[in-house]
Amino acid sequence: MIETPYLLFLGDAPDALTAKVARGIKDWRPEFAVGQLRLPGCKADMGIADLTIDEAMAKGARTLVIGVANRGGVISERWLEVLTAALEAGMDLASGLHNRLTHVPVLASLAAAKGRSLHDVRVPEVAYPIANGEKRQGKRCLAVGTDCSIGKMYTALCMEREMRARNMNATFRATGQTGILITGSGVPLDAVVADFMSGAVEYLTPDNDPDHWDLIEGQGSIFHPSYSGVTMALIHGGQPDALILCDEPNRPHMRGLPGYKAQSLEILRDTALQLARIVNPDCKVTGISLNTSAMGDDEALDYAAKVEERMGLPTVDPYRHGAMRLVDGLS
Amino acid sequence: MIETPYLLFLGDAPDALTAKVARGIKDWRPEFAVGQLRLPGCKADMGIADLTIDEAMAKGARTLVIGVANRGGVISERWLEVLTAALEAGMDLASGLHNRLTHVPVLASLAAAKGRSLHDVRVPEVAYPIANGEKRQGKRCLAVGTDCSIGKMYTALCMEREMRARNMNATFRATGQTGILITGSGVPLDAVVADFMSGAVEYLTPDNDPDHWDLIEGQGSIFHPSYSGVTMALIHGGQPDALILCDEPNRPHMRGLPGYKAQSLEILRDTALQLARIVNPDCKVTGISLNTSAMGDDEALDYAAKVEERMGLPTVDPYRHGAMRLVDGLS
Repeated sequence: MIETPYLLFLGDAPDALTAKVARGIKDWRPEFAVGQLRLPGCKADMGIADLTIDEAMAKGARTLVIGVANRGGVISERWLEVLTAALEAGMDLASGLHNRLTHVPVLASLAAAKGRSLHDVRVPEVAYPIANGEKRQGKRCLAVGTDCSIGKMYTALCMEREMRARNMNATFRATGQTGILITGSGVPLDAVVADFMSGAVEYLTPDNDPDHWDLIEGQGSIFHPSYSGVTMALIHGGQPDALILCDEPNRPHMRGLPGYKAQSLEILRDTALQLARIVNPDCKVTGISLNTSAMGDDEALDYAAKVEERMGLPTVDPYRHGAMRLVDGLS
Repeated sequence: MIETPYLLFLGDAPDALTAKVARGIKDWRPEFAVGQLRLPGCKADMGIADLTIDEAMAKGARTLVIGVANRGGVISERWLEVLTAALEAGMDLASGLHNRLTHVPVLASLAAAKGRSLHDVRVPEVAYPIANGEKRQGKRCLAVGTDCSIGKMYTALCMEREMRARNMNATFRATGQTGILITGSGVPLDAVVADFMSGAVEYLTPDNDPDHWDLIEGQGSIFHPSYSGVTMALIHGGQPDALILCDEPNRPHMRGLPGYKAQSLEILRDTALQLARIVNPDCKVTGISLNTSAMGDDEALDYAAKVEERMGLPTVDPYRHGAMRLVDGLS
């Protein structure tokens, strides 16, 4: 287990989306975040105290969490001064990047010398099986998106919060570094070897009580050419009973791909449902989750109402308006 | 490079499909196969000489190739006696399984002591990039199937042979262990970490001459819940200009999944084309490749004619009848 509370390190994040790991911790476990540390040029801001290493130690921080997700998952040279200073001061380090803290010689040797821990939460620690496609007991809900980084994890976490408030039997299932850092367990799906991706999702969402819901964290998008294979493994390994469609209005193009326009909710509905019904013929699309963070209050409500009328499905921004209607849609 | 010729080790293969690595080498590089070695109970047969280790050495074999693909890619305990005997006699070992020869202590220590090589062709040796989805010059053809193990590699190899006979500019691009063992290079796609699958396919099929065709070896099936993520990465990383649909008539269910019926060629055509057009709006389905190995000659021709009439696309068993019409369909 990673020791808490955390100092959230935002590095030189070029935009807010890049810092989604830190944002997730701050939103879902605010009690874990004593403050943030940002380098010059950082464009992200969690709205919490900017602290030096020493100030964070004085506030009780036990672990510096790298809260940014670089393209390709690289540990930047520019970060090393802060990371070594945190180890020197007595903090552990935690990272969800592809490149491992333990593979950076200066960090590995310093951590060993100081008796500190390096947590690479993205490294799979289980020998996952090949998927067998067999029907499992219990129910599963998967969030799928028109693009990456669009609100799939938040949707699942909002639904879990609402279901637990209703004393429903529900578990958020983390499939990425942020979710694992938030909940302390899960499958780092984008680091799993290709042949075992779908089996890892089956492993994550095993047989359960008939009334239990797994709320599976989505990854990527079936329309995003860099990551669509991971999304496919979630759809087929997850055997969803319910799909929630996730969208962020007015994105000019797909994340990181200026040449690619976002696909519509209609195409997402039809494509995802067709693929999901291969493993679960009873799968339904039960709601739509909008990320309206760039909109004003009236604009967001108006937009959701129009999408709801167009699509004929409960449509909300669950982080802004609550996940009640998405949970209602499951039954 | 792996030293040739080979002794093909079939182990205790429970059926012919399991030995597809050996079959591929025997069919496409018969000059590499001096003979086969089978354990009691083996149900596969390459139709070549059964040789002991000593007999194979006398015929010049330099490498024992594990020609079977176990579920999960495990090196069986029952094989170790033969594998150690081959090393003792002076052969190298080559394997495309997930589990590595180099990770079996008795093989690693014996190979080191004898100065022999252990080739794990499935282990990625390149740090593949994240896919960028950018348009590349040159043309690409991808075989997609209604199921796994249905003839996708053979289709691409048959087309390469035909195109080279016509002095066309074409390259078979291996994405699996058999293809890599046959051609000596490629990407072991099902062993690549999830986030880099699509980037590995982009790496394998880079910018090329405008008239050059990559013939990309398919993997899995978008309908096979164990491996569909790998297939998705091929469709989106490969940016195919042309798709060839592959089918084996009369399969009772999908490979390894008794609960799953095969999907139709119509559904494959529509689903694969929709997904491929995300990365290449000009992608077309240009032909159908049938694996008619279980049919008589007249039955095979009759079946292909009926499929051709139904689908309106050139339809052949390229291994049986030649790939001429599939190649014609590209232009």
